[in-house]
Amino acid sequence: FRNGLFVETEDKAFSFKLGGRMQIDGGFASSADTMSRSNVGFRRAQIWLEGKAYKDWYYRFQYDFTNAGVTGIRDAYIGYRAKLLPEEISKQPVTFQIGNFFEPFSMETTSSTSNITFLERALPTVLAPSRHTGAAVTIGDKLWSVKTGIFSTSPQDTAVSPPAGESQYWDAAVRATYAPIQEEDKLLHLGSSFRYHRPNNTTAATDGAFLRPGAGTEREEADILGGSGTWTRVSTAQDLSCGATAASLNTSVTGLAGLYYPFARRSSCLKYAYSYGFEAAAAYGPFSVQGEYIATRYERDATSAFLYSNGGGSSLQFSGYYVQGSWFLTGESRAAVYGSYDKNFFTPGTFGPIQIKDPVNKGGWGAWELAARYSELNLNNGGLIPGSLVYPSLLTGTPATALQKALSSTATLGGRQDNLTIGLNWYPVNGFRLQANWTKALTLVAPSDRPYLNGEHPSLFLARANVFW
Amino acid sequence: FRNGLFVETEDKAFSFKLGGRMQIDGGFASSADTMSRSNVGFRRAQIWLEGKAYKDWYYRFQYDFTNAGVTGIRDAYIGYRAKLLPEEISKQPVTFQIGNFFEPFSMETTSSTSNITFLERALPTVLAPSRHTGAAVTIGDKLWSVKTGIFSTSPQDTAVSPPAGESQYWDAAVRATYAPIQEEDKLLHLGSSFRYHRPNNTTAATDGAFLRPGAGTEREEADILGGSGTWTRVSTAQDLSCGATAASLNTSVTGLAGLYYPFARRSSCLKYAYSYGFEAAAAYGPFSVQGEYIATRYERDATSAFLYSNGGGSSLQFSGYYVQGSWFLTGESRAAVYGSYDKNFFTPGTFGPIQIKDPVNKGGWGAWELAARYSELNLNNGGLIPGSLVYPSLLTGTPATALQKALSSTATLGGRQDNLTIGLNWYPVNGFRLQANWTKALTLVAPSDRPYLNGEHPSLFLARANVFW
Amino acid sequence: FRNGLFVETEDKAFSFKLGGRMQIDGGFASSADTMSRSNVGFRRAQIWLEGKAYKDWYYRFQYDFTNAGVTGIRDAYIGYRAKLLPEEISKQPVTFQIGNFFEPFSMETTSSTSNITFLERALPTVLAPSRHTGAAVTIGDKLWSVKTGIFSTSPQDTAVSPPAGESQYWDAAVRATYAPIQEEDKLLHLGSSFRYHRPNNTTAATDGAFLRPGAGTEREEADILGGSGTWTRVSTAQDLSCGATAASLNTSVTGLAGLYYPFARRSSCLKYAYSYGFEAAAAYGPFSVQGEYIATRYERDATSAFLYSNGGGSSLQFSGYYVQGSWFLTGESRAAVYGSYDKNFFTPGTFGPIQIKDPVNKGGWGAWELAARYSELNLNNGGLIPGSLVYPSLLTGTPATALQKALSSTATLGGRQDNLTIGLNWYPVNGFRLQANWTKALTLVAPSDRPYLNGEHPSLFLARANVFW
Repeated sequence: FRNGLFVETEDKAFSFKLGGRMQIDGGFASSADTMSRSNVGFRRAQIWLEGKAYKDWYYRFQYDFTNAGVTGIRDAYIGYRAKLLPEEISKQPVTFQIGNFFEPFSMETTSSTSNITFLERALPTVLAPSRHTGAAVTIGDKLWSVKTGIFSTSPQDTAVSPPAGESQYWDAAVRATYAPIQEEDKLLHLGSSFRYHRPNNTTAATDGAFLRPGAGTEREEADILGGSGTWTRVSTAQDLSCGATAASLNTSVTGLAGLYYPFARRSSCLKYAYSYGFEAAAAYGPFSVQGEYIATRYERDATSAFLYSNGGGSSLQFSGYYVQGSWFLTGESRAAVYGSYDKNFFTPGTFGPIQIKDPVNKGGWGAWELAARYSELNLNNGGLIPGSLVYPSLLTGTPATALQKALSSTATLGGRQDNLTIGLNWYPVNGFRLQANWTKALTLVAPSDRPYLNGEHPSLFLARANVFW
Repeated sequence: FRNGLFVETEDKAFSFKLGGRMQIDGGFASSADTMSRSNVGFRRAQIWLEGKAYKDWYYRFQYDFTNAGVTGIRDAYIGYRAKLLPEEISKQPVTFQIGNFFEPFSMETTSSTSNITFLERALPTVLAPSRHTGAAVTIGDKLWSVKTGIFSTSPQDTAVSPPAGESQYWDAAVRATYAPIQEEDKLLHLGSSFRYHRPNNTTAATDGAFLRPGAGTEREEADILGGSGTWTRVSTAQDLSCGATAASLNTSVTGLAGLYYPFARRSSCLKYAYSYGFEAAAAYGPFSVQGEYIATRYERDATSAFLYSNGGGSSLQFSGYYVQGSWFLTGESRAAVYGSYDKNFFTPGTFGPIQIKDPVNKGGWGAWELAARYSELNLNNGGLIPGSLVYPSLLTGTPATALQKALSSTATLGGRQDNLTIGLNWYPVNGFRLQANWTKALTLVAPSDRPYLNGEHPSLFLARANVFW
Repeated sequence: FRNGLFVETEDKAFSFKLGGRMQIDGGFASSADTMSRSNVGFRRAQIWLEGKAYKDWYYRFQYDFTNAGVTGIRDAYIGYRAKLLPEEISKQPVTFQIGNFFEPFSMETTSSTSNITFLERALPTVLAPSRHTGAAVTIGDKLWSVKTGIFSTSPQDTAVSPPAGESQYWDAAVRATYAPIQEEDKLLHLGSSFRYHRPNNTTAATDGAFLRPGAGTEREEADILGGSGTWTRVSTAQDLSCGATAASLNTSVTGLAGLYYPFARRSSCLKYAYSYGFEAAAAYGPFSVQGEYIATRYERDATSAFLYSNGGGSSLQFSGYYVQGSWFLTGESRAAVYGSYDKNFFTPGTFGPIQIKDPVNKGGWGAWELAARYSELNLNNGGLIPGSLVYPSLLTGTPATALQKALSSTATLGGRQDNLTIGLNWYPVNGFRLQANWTKALTLVAPSDRPYLNGEHPSLFLARANVFW
């Protein structure tokens, strides 16, 4: 018996766990565009069921009640492990996984929100893929791991079903980790990720968060205070695949009801996109540092993009990075909870829950952690289409709008933001955590359609009561 | 301890189970109207809690997370069993049940989707009722069972609450089964069902799937690929009870706000409807066959239907059937898992999960099953209103539309479809199943409003990873 | 092991429970405005997980599947208990609580729906706050308890996020109870509650049920039969804070897209509001009585309210009360299940589930209870603005509407309703309850915008099958 509900047969061939997590947030922000001044609410309210059967078979189903219907499904997969590799490569079984789970990309993204240091993930993780439905295979050993898979849509996509006659988009992703130093109080972790995204004509528009970077529903260093929760975004949050425009054209062509015309579908502006990232983490006693760099490159068809009045050039690159440090005042070490492949075979190379040295229930003070993070996301990109081509089609708007759009068309000026976050965490007993974060936007280069944000240095304070079992 | 979570007191008076099911689908279809080319996604993601208390009291609550809010409620009932019948009639207690559950009708419909042979139920099950809220009583013994009940709306109806001043519709249903041969490897099962449906004025419109056959949200031999998921339907999916039309009339009559007029409500076009079905199943060793015939008859008021421009005649009959065969290459028998009333008193006369002879965890190959099904649904019906009466009211549309509608008014030409499905199932261990289905529409007589579908022979391929615990 | 799933460690430091509740209703009503004639459906379908950890830490997460998404979250909190008070004040630990739960106000409101005597709570509870997100502290001992806390929005509010630049509303509430007589078959309980509500400009409009009394989504002595489920309400259900009007004004002022003007926000009509209540309950053997009086006072800015054409005067007071009696024919006593602070430290001073003396599973008849309740809600209020000020702005409507609104502006005539309810409950075994209620509106003074309801005496009959585990 453990915290929560966990049962296991004596031979450990079967086990079952009913877990859950509640995150109750409250805070306030200094004024900035869509940000509100104060609010309280639930950030997450999840339960999950997971189990092991016949020693080698696994399943996990996780649901977040702050979403409605199918969009609340988080992890939902089946796993199977088999000893396939020769001993000289790995002593560990190979792990197969099918269902909905995080694509293998980035340490911060694939870590559980119960175990990340701050309230929200760092800014550059908007460029990383979220959970998707697909299949993956993972190999590795104590020191290293490689997880790769192919994926398609997810229950959280805005539109799960592609239009008639079309195929769903697909991704291929891989993440490799290597941790040469893994001791009780020392850790060195290195990793790298790559993801290829193939939009299939118009359907890719359903993956909104990826095709409109900074306009998605994910909240990174943002919070429950804001509507969209983001301060940077590609100007007017245009869909880089021209997806929405193309869909409406189809409708007008096939408007004559009852008759069947072949669909006159336009190809997507976006030929393909790929992302890559590098990560490193180290711990020495109670001190730890962690950092990542993530970049995404969109290869577009410039002619199509121009015809559909969807500016932004033929080849865009967005990127971001973060560096963070943490100090456990009470002596705990993140090195001790590093999950190498032999311990955490579904998401190797991430951190698990801290082992509190002196919890409150034994008369201690729990664990106290001080942390700071510097985080940047850069959505500015030099334009590749000559400005003269774009101006005319925009002159139908008001002069001010046309000028503004023209600027953003020749160069996708989605803005740049640099944030500093200071955090204080208290872990009284296992499963409970109280967190406070203060974030200041040190640099805020506004997106081209919201120039009034230039010069703002908004800040926000957020506190969270977190319980998981 | 079993797969998943199951606890029981030593005297077996109390028990509790937390179960769940995930079905992850992927596949592609050849082009046909609203069908898409490819997709992946979740077909079902359910959890359920069920329990026994004081030996005779039962409850079960099942929720499907692929639906939002109240529409995700599936089984949700309370049961009670008491020894009321004399021994010469039955040695088994009588079962009372109140809540939301499948009306007793059809073997295929009332079987769990974990235990049906193919990915989707056969075509004629669109004519069978789904889960509804009501009360039922079941009697039976090892050889026979009779389940009957009265029902009304369900959480899955599109509108649960009837309009002011109206009553909810109601159903009465009964299913009787008889299985004279029940051995370890031999089975003969016979059954018959009947359902009476009484729409109460306009409110019956909420039971969309029944009043617009083929246009409902149930997916039968269809899949996650399509929007509506159906290839046949009553033309333009008209509501046979004229419900929607009548509702809008009421609004205009009572338009003067703040004053209270008696509602000038029109009676429904549909006087009543009834369905009946016959079923048979047999198994001999690893071989099994199963078949059903289902028909529904709608008795309408022809004058009302004409006045509301809702064509289709005064008396309609739709029907369908399927025949399927299955062969366990690895020797398992469906006869061994037949649930007679003494074993399965809530849904007697259905099959349970296969008992795998040589599962993978014991070094075997699991169970392998080959299956084929031929399935027909016929929504064509000869018209009973003279065509001359209907033509004028339709001439306001374009000539093409009027002609088309006229045809469908004099004869409800909802189309006819005959499908052949080939399936391969692999059961590696209990609780896991991998399935692949290939379906070809051998005959596709299109509904009258979509004549361009005539001559199409669409096919689809679907694979599923299924886990339940 | 108990009914349902409950596990505990031997030292009682850890425990976990997975509970649930289903309420299946059916009934019919005599005609009255928005009431329907008959229906069946699910009133509640909940599951909850609750646990204890390290002896002093608690959590509880409850979800109602009859709601969609975040609005289905009910109780969701973390608790902690510590022995802080000197022995002479209390031998019991102090209880801290953070999350979403009932504000401490009113015995009937904070009682579990499994334990209240009738199907729906009494009429005056519309004036009491529901669950809100906040923090509370409770002290007490066997004889007394005081629970107080501050709260803000809740997941069930229609809009959780306040507009840009605004703060969320907040409440402060306190409830004190004192029960000098607590024996096996004798009880005397007294209590009092107070709540202060501070709307912050327009944002308070999100707490619809409080600012539009009688128009909320809560169902009190009403039922699944009706749309809104209420017979009384403030005329045309106006928002007493003028919230909606103000919000639309903001939009027009800031209409010039892309430019940033300071928001020209109007202050709310509502300065603040407060509610207070008194409660008493007594039991003597199988007989028990219970009663409450609840009143709410809204302090408004009369000038603002007039300018925004939002009539109703500058200071409004609404109130209601109920008295109920219950008799257990089978001898059970509510005194035995009274939850004083030493037994029920999260909601002290409420009743727990009845202990059945002779349950059906032991050959008895279960528990039978007869009950009656008289319940009044008065939303009429004398006007404080001279009628001459209000008339002109309303003359633009039709004469009838203007006259009607004028009346309601000078005096907020929200109607008055007195109900008599007779109830019969059968508790066959623990966890199961069958209930039947018949309610008659003895007095129905209609709200000023629905005068046609005057003289109606609608009645309704409702039956419920209730299971919790």
